[in-house]
Amino acid sequence: MKWVREILERFKRGELSLDETINALKSLLYKDLFFAKIDTSRSLRRGFPEVIMAEGKSPEQVREIVLSYLDFEDNILITRANNKVFEALKDVPGVKYYREARIIAIKRREVEKRGLVCIITGGTGDIPVAEEAAVTAEFFGANVVRIYDIGVAGIHRLFDKLEEIRKGDVIIVCAGMDAALFSVVAGLVEAPVIAVPTSTGYGASLGGLAALLSALNTCSPGVAVVNIDNGFGAGYIAALIVKKIYD
Amino acid sequence: MKWVREILERFKRGELSLDETINALKSLLYKDLFFAKIDTSRSLRRGFPEVIMAEGKSPEQVREIVLSYLDFEDNILITRANNKVFEALKDVPGVKYYREARIIAIKRREVEKRGLVCIITGGTGDIPVAEEAAVTAEFFGANVVRIYDIGVAGIHRLFDKLEEIRKGDVIIVCAGMDAALFSVVAGLVEAPVIAVPTSTGYGASLGGLAALLSALNTCSPGVAVVNIDNGFGAGYIAALIVKKIYD
Amino acid sequence: MKWVREILERFKRGELSLDETINALKSLLYKDLFFAKIDTSRSLRRGFPEVIMAEGKSPEQVREIVLSYLDFEDNILITRANNKVFEALKDVPGVKYYREARIIAIKRREVEKRGLVCIITGGTGDIPVAEEAAVTAEFFGANVVRIYDIGVAGIHRLFDKLEEIRKGDVIIVCAGMDAALFSVVAGLVEAPVIAVPTSTGYGASLGGLAALLSALNTCSPGVAVVNIDNGFGAGYIAALIVKKIYD
Amino acid sequence: MKWVREILERFKRGELSLDETINALKSLLYKDLFFAKIDTSRSLRRGFPEVIMAEGKSPEQVREIVLSYLDFEDNILITRANNKVFEALKDVPGVKYYREARIIAIKRREVEKRGLVCIITGGTGDIPVAEEAAVTAEFFGANVVRIYDIGVAGIHRLFDKLEEIRKGDVIIVCAGMDAALFSVVAGLVEAPVIAVPTSTGYGASLGGLAALLSALNTCSPGVAVVNIDNGFGAGYIAALIVKKIYD
Amino acid sequence: MKWVREILERFKRGELSLDETINALKSLLYKDLFFAKIDTSRSLRRGFPEVIMAEGKSPEQVREIVLSYLDFEDNILITRANNKVFEALKDVPGVKYYREARIIAIKRREVEKRGLVCIITGGTGDIPVAEEAAVTAEFFGANVVRIYDIGVAGIHRLFDKLEEIRKGDVIIVCAGMDAALFSVVAGLVEAPVIAVPTSTGYGASLGGLAALLSALNTCSPGVAVVNIDNGFGAGYIAALIVKKIYD
Amino acid sequence: MKWVREILERFKRGELSLDETINALKSLLYKDLFFAKIDTSRSLRRGFPEVIMAEGKSPEQVREIVLSYLDFEDNILITRANNKVFEALKDVPGVKYYREARIIAIKRREVEKRGLVCIITGGTGDIPVAEEAAVTAEFFGANVVRIYDIGVAGIHRLFDKLEEIRKGDVIIVCAGMDAALFSVVAGLVEAPVIAVPTSTGYGASLGGLAALLSALNTCSPGVAVVNIDNGFGAGYIAALIVKKIYD
Amino acid sequence: MKWVREILERFKRGELSLDETINALKSLLYKDLFFAKIDTSRSLRRGFPEVIMAEGKSPEQVREIVLSYLDFEDNILITRANNKVFEALKDVPGVKYYREARIIAIKRREVEKRGLVCIITGGTGDIPVAEEAAVTAEFFGANVVRIYDIGVAGIHRLFDKLEEIRKGDVIIVCAGMDAALFSVVAGLVEAPVIAVPTSTGYGASLGGLAALLSALNTCSPGVAVVNIDNGFGAGYIAALIVKKIYD
Amino acid sequence: MKWVREILERFKRGELSLDETINALKSLLYKDLFFAKIDTSRSLRRGFPEVIMAEGKSPEQVREIVLSYLDFEDNILITRANNKVFEALKDVPGVKYYREARIIAIKRREVEKRGLVCIITGGTGDIPVAEEAAVTAEFFGANVVRIYDIGVAGIHRLFDKLEEIRKGDVIIVCAGMDAALFSVVAGLVEAPVIAVPTSTGYGASLGGLAALLSALNTCSPGVAVVNIDNGFGAGYIAALIVKKIYD
Repeated sequence: MKWVREILERFKRGELSLDETINALKSLLYKDLFFAKIDTSRSLRRGFPEVIMAEGKSPEQVREIVLSYLDFEDNILITRANNKVFEALKDVPGVKYYREARIIAIKRREVEKRGLVCIITGGTGDIPVAEEAAVTAEFFGANVVRIYDIGVAGIHRLFDKLEEIRKGDVIIVCAGMDAALFSVVAGLVEAPVIAVPTSTGYGASLGGLAALLSALNTCSPGVAVVNIDNGFGAGYIAALIVKKIYD
Repeated sequence: MKWVREILERFKRGELSLDETINALKSLLYKDLFFAKIDTSRSLRRGFPEVIMAEGKSPEQVREIVLSYLDFEDNILITRANNKVFEALKDVPGVKYYREARIIAIKRREVEKRGLVCIITGGTGDIPVAEEAAVTAEFFGANVVRIYDIGVAGIHRLFDKLEEIRKGDVIIVCAGMDAALFSVVAGLVEAPVIAVPTSTGYGASLGGLAALLSALNTCSPGVAVVNIDNGFGAGYIAALIVKKIYD
Repeated sequence: MKWVREILERFKRGELSLDETINALKSLLYKDLFFAKIDTSRSLRRGFPEVIMAEGKSPEQVREIVLSYLDFEDNILITRANNKVFEALKDVPGVKYYREARIIAIKRREVEKRGLVCIITGGTGDIPVAEEAAVTAEFFGANVVRIYDIGVAGIHRLFDKLEEIRKGDVIIVCAGMDAALFSVVAGLVEAPVIAVPTSTGYGASLGGLAALLSALNTCSPGVAVVNIDNGFGAGYIAALIVKKIYD
Repeated sequence: MKWVREILERFKRGELSLDETINALKSLLYKDLFFAKIDTSRSLRRGFPEVIMAEGKSPEQVREIVLSYLDFEDNILITRANNKVFEALKDVPGVKYYREARIIAIKRREVEKRGLVCIITGGTGDIPVAEEAAVTAEFFGANVVRIYDIGVAGIHRLFDKLEEIRKGDVIIVCAGMDAALFSVVAGLVEAPVIAVPTSTGYGASLGGLAALLSALNTCSPGVAVVNIDNGFGAGYIAALIVKKIYD
Repeated sequence: MKWVREILERFKRGELSLDETINALKSLLYKDLFFAKIDTSRSLRRGFPEVIMAEGKSPEQVREIVLSYLDFEDNILITRANNKVFEALKDVPGVKYYREARIIAIKRREVEKRGLVCIITGGTGDIPVAEEAAVTAEFFGANVVRIYDIGVAGIHRLFDKLEEIRKGDVIIVCAGMDAALFSVVAGLVEAPVIAVPTSTGYGASLGGLAALLSALNTCSPGVAVVNIDNGFGAGYIAALIVKKIYD
Repeated sequence: MKWVREILERFKRGELSLDETINALKSLLYKDLFFAKIDTSRSLRRGFPEVIMAEGKSPEQVREIVLSYLDFEDNILITRANNKVFEALKDVPGVKYYREARIIAIKRREVEKRGLVCIITGGTGDIPVAEEAAVTAEFFGANVVRIYDIGVAGIHRLFDKLEEIRKGDVIIVCAGMDAALFSVVAGLVEAPVIAVPTSTGYGASLGGLAALLSALNTCSPGVAVVNIDNGFGAGYIAALIVKKIYD
Repeated sequence: MKWVREILERFKRGELSLDETINALKSLLYKDLFFAKIDTSRSLRRGFPEVIMAEGKSPEQVREIVLSYLDFEDNILITRANNKVFEALKDVPGVKYYREARIIAIKRREVEKRGLVCIITGGTGDIPVAEEAAVTAEFFGANVVRIYDIGVAGIHRLFDKLEEIRKGDVIIVCAGMDAALFSVVAGLVEAPVIAVPTSTGYGASLGGLAALLSALNTCSPGVAVVNIDNGFGAGYIAALIVKKIYD
Repeated sequence: MKWVREILERFKRGELSLDETINALKSLLYKDLFFAKIDTSRSLRRGFPEVIMAEGKSPEQVREIVLSYLDFEDNILITRANNKVFEALKDVPGVKYYREARIIAIKRREVEKRGLVCIITGGTGDIPVAEEAAVTAEFFGANVVRIYDIGVAGIHRLFDKLEEIRKGDVIIVCAGMDAALFSVVAGLVEAPVIAVPTSTGYGASLGGLAALLSALNTCSPGVAVVNIDNGFGAGYIAALIVKKIYD
């Protein structure tokens, strides 16, 4: 918060009037579009810029937010974006649509990648969630390795990949149904494990609640959990930990 | 139902009156104590005699049922029995109280044991449920091997016991919390797996519901499930399958 | 695991180098398609080969998995397959689509059928789930008899079929709504009963949860339960028990 | 509402002042004890007098309500009453404590009994709820027959009693666990069936919710349901129907 | 069961062989279409014939059941029937489609109507459920009066109709949201009240669960409950009670 | 209720016959359209006229209700109205469709606005619910200020608007997901806070239940809650409080 | 926030150093006891001082908080206080224990009471919750009228008290079971209604969830809801509204 | 896994027989006490040794496990330990009971502490859970700072501590009720946030489920969640991340 102190001291020295001081402070904070207030100071405050969730917004709203936001940030991430949102943004320079991950990334400045996030799925059906995690973690500066479909029904697949998995600074596991993979992986590695329960399954999987409860009750410690299908949240916190390690 | 045909034919030949016929049929069926109707024909119909659940009955009621039932069966199993129930029954010849399993068994005739039921727990806290399964399976004529505390947090314990586990004709797995063990074991064996979710755990384990949902959503097929903490039900169906195999 | 010992001993005798040993072991285990890792050793390990669940995979992915898998197995089962999946596979020799059961079976080698699985439904609406169970059990080598729409609202239908039902080595009961049939059938037979709660019903049937809870709380012992609408799981474990009995 | 018309007409004829009219109307309606307002007009309005639920009231409060109420009614029913409540009332003439039913009845006038309510339980553990229903139905003028422990695990017990059951004008069935008895009984009789789910059971019986859901989803029509363990409610509505039939 | 006794006695007198006896008994019981087993003896056993629920059956299946059933019954009721089912049946003599009630009735014999069922809704949105109840009750021989949209938000509407409501032998109340009407109506009448919770509402109405819980917890006794949106069930049991009163 | 007294006194003086009196009273109460009973006396009784919820009614029904109601009220509010409902009403003088709020208002008399309701959202996706609240509060005579997208992820946005928020006589907060805004806002203001949980979010947001539970468990007192997405209910009670303050 | 501006201006004029300014600001904000941080500025910020919830704190902790807090406030409210907490505080001048309400109030300065909060219960069992609301509302300066046990089972009790109820500026309704009273009362009054669902009831009342859902789904608008049994929260917001009206 | 390679190579060179090799491998893995299998290789595999959960084990079992485990590890952590467990262990050298945290730690070797875990609670009632987290994190080598009772009802307390909070490498937040603190803290810091929902609260807090859902739905990213009241799990993963950063 050094810049606040600076502004305050300039105010005291009479270099800034009271109104000028207030405006200076405010302009650093957010951009007001009425229907949205872009948190322009977030990367200062949190290390990573605000991410735009497209779901619940019209493509026009997303476009307006993105265009305004580009005055403040070089790179912007838009999650849960369908094709219509991409259509509304595809003329923006640096835009890229990761369809499986449902993510649109606008990159105007290259980010150096560090560390390693290992992203695992129990089955093929969990891959979209894993891709959301992967694209997010890469966007925020982490290297990613993807190891898909190694669920415990054929546990030798997991053991065969174990050496590779153990190289991860953080391990993200995406699994649905009974999600036994969370405990099994956590029991074999040193790195923190982020569990992403997915909504794959039917009947008593209750839209992912069964996997969520498994995630919260792992018999192996060293696991923390994000919302059902929340690949973005897992990729974000994994990148945060990687940043902490390598900064 | 050969005896019914016989009675009917004797009735036709006039050897039995209509009323005699009805009574003959009825006496084979159940014993009426008003507050309980003992299903005396169950072992004929189902292979195994009726089992008495002590919970929800007074010790006096259990005693009265047991004493009446001994006219029909040599061996009787009483589940969910606390110490008071045992006190009410301890003068009955052949009685034995399996305290950890909360089972009282009355055995006046030895039963030959066959086959092998392998009973596994994820943790130490699941042992009472496993013991209920074990005592039940033994009572109904199965050999039992107990392998306790081999949960996936240290999965090498499971692999070290795998050869032994694979010898089971049926495998019963008792596990609480996320109950990852159900899928992992089922993925490694040929035998049918009976999953017994237990209520060990806290918070989001929801009294065993998390483990139950895991059991119902195993990614490995070959698993069937009984009620939370229902060691008796698991032991019963395991013994039934063993009987089918060796009869 | 005899072959592993063999490989290890050949390795010791110097017939295989360390790298050759590792590769030999690995090639027996699974085939890696990146988005899917086919468990090629499953029939060795579990008696039955891996089954492909089409739901959550694109028809192209299913096709790629199936074609790769045919190098290892003669017969392949694909569950929860809609018409698009069948379109993607219909040129594969030996393919057959069981539309009501939503199953595609590829059979290039005939399997001898043994034993008897009796499959019952409470109503007409439960038949698709029952068919999934039936086709699965037959695929894995069991004879099947189908007895449909004998729910307890007209319980004499059940009694009329009882002799036939009692011939089953295993009995699968598919029922929705209050699913009273689970307890009633189990109370009348010697064979183990696999209960499949179905999602037929409305309102407080809660998508099959009411039937599931009935299945878990049957007053007759000898019942084990699979997930809501999981005809496949029931057919699989029934075939497993039949295999145990007749092997 | 004849008396209201009468009062209004007397008011019009000037025989009652406005205030007298209001008071006359009011005094017929309820007695105010501040912490309780006894509904003294209920038997006029509903055929049966107000019933006092002891739970949630102190024994002193129950006593004060009862003593005030005796100015208006000869017979009073107090449900969910423990021993302390009985101690506070045992000097009241005509009092009787039905301990198993947890009911205290004060009877100062004999009531002629008519019709027949048949009360059935699945097991021995359901008897206290059944007794609450039985004592209530008798209090409100119905004859009662009790048939206990005829659950479907031994369904021949039910068939043996069927002729007796079919004599009921109304049939109350009390059952816990999977409560299959509701559908089975309803499928065999002409009379309306009142289902009382009970909280007997454990684990996934969820304190009676499993039985409640069974009751709401019976495949046999002709069933209506009351709250878990609500024997009183079942006895009340059964007596109401009996009254409708025989009035 | 007089006819069974008759058959048995004829069997004894030698007028029927054993096989003839069995067939005679069986033919009275049900008609087997493989995918459905029509309960032809239901009206004998329960007073009312079997009702066909169209949901979960194909229009072809419904047609086949109906045509077979017409050999046994004059009048047939088909519930939860959409337009496609009606198209498949519209050439059947005596058919009528009650679109709002989603009921198809086939009536080839007029039924005399007796008694009075009063059917009430809280709002306009509950009318389809009420109509299902009304058409059902009329089909089974009861007179019906409909009083719609008198929810407690304007409780004077209820009081204005109270005299009319009190004429009902049975009162059916259909209400969604908080369903306060169940308790309010029951508190004002002598007749038994059948509560039908409906799924009208949103958010925390949880698809009718809020109304269902209200129905199960009414502070006024004299209420019994059927499943959410189950107008049919309410109409059926109401007609049953009317039959009991007037027979 | 002055007019009732007047009618009664006129009745006593013989100016009105008994029937005339009853009709006079009744005509003031509601208008009966059979499928709907318009509560014409509601504004007299409650200060605000009845509001019509379009959901669950056909456009024709809504139109018929509105046209009848216009005999009694100048201004009418129709909530949860889609485009079809608007098409059915667009020829009514004074009609206006607030599309985002899904509200149709018919205003034939201007209402003076008083006080201030401050309406806040956590995110852009909560705006439709907020607009429903805003249009409702304005319809019932309150001034409204809208402050959107100031969720706690960038809490400085909230603090920057705090002075403006504190001017509200009542504050409505619309928020989904974890809905942390309810507690945070309530902790900073003097005015009563109405919390509207919204269904924005996914997975474990459970359709707004997570936000609802947050609303009910706020650690700051001074918060009361309405149903999920119930902007109307919040706007209504806010206008009610404003009316109480300024009347 | 006038005082903050003052401090800032004094800081600018050099009358306060930077450190002095920070301390001045901070000392106005909270008192730090490590295990608790008393919010000493709350009455400034919110109009009412912080309330201490005793549950979850040891009597010693409560005492230490109270003694520290008395330096800042004259009057202190402690909720959910059992007898042990009262024992620890009974030597504090001005202390009073409202046992039924489980509230301890310390009053060293008299507060003038204004307005009127009308507090209603459905039954006698809801009185403790109502008393918590009443004592709280009085503590924060509102007059209170208590009207208990007027639930809809005898709805004339409510109508008889209606004139009195209508005098309330705010109406608090405490009701359990189906809580029909919320809608009924709200449909008859002009004042805002605060609904307090209580945990009275059993079985499907689910510890007050049934009443809570009723409260959230009232068909009458003008109702806002607080947590189950949260009499304190209702009394607090009622007093807040009274304050708004009379300030 | 260097030592495994070593053993294998010694086996190949003939220095170890096949049996010796197997035993050597096995002895490194776990210690078998029948009722418990201590995972002696865990610290090798996961960096931290196995932790013993006392709940669900008898004090004697805990003692036996601890004494055996001391052959392998210097320092042992026992969680969820009540006084009886401590009594059974208090003669063990190096033992210490952290009563508020319910943890027993046995420390025979000092561990150097690194990094900083900041542990925050919303209220005083959350402190026991926070202490469990704190003692665990310290045991596994992290420095800890405790900041208690800074919930959002008085959010200035949080802002006053913000600078201190921002120093944490990882931040653990323990909060119950609506748990708004998770989002608020995460929105202000750069470090990863571990959310621990606690069971403080009542009614609709549902034993901590409300807080859990808040945790899973935080609008600020950068949050991962552990089970309700699982302070241990939070402390463990926080220490793991610290280890990753400083190794």
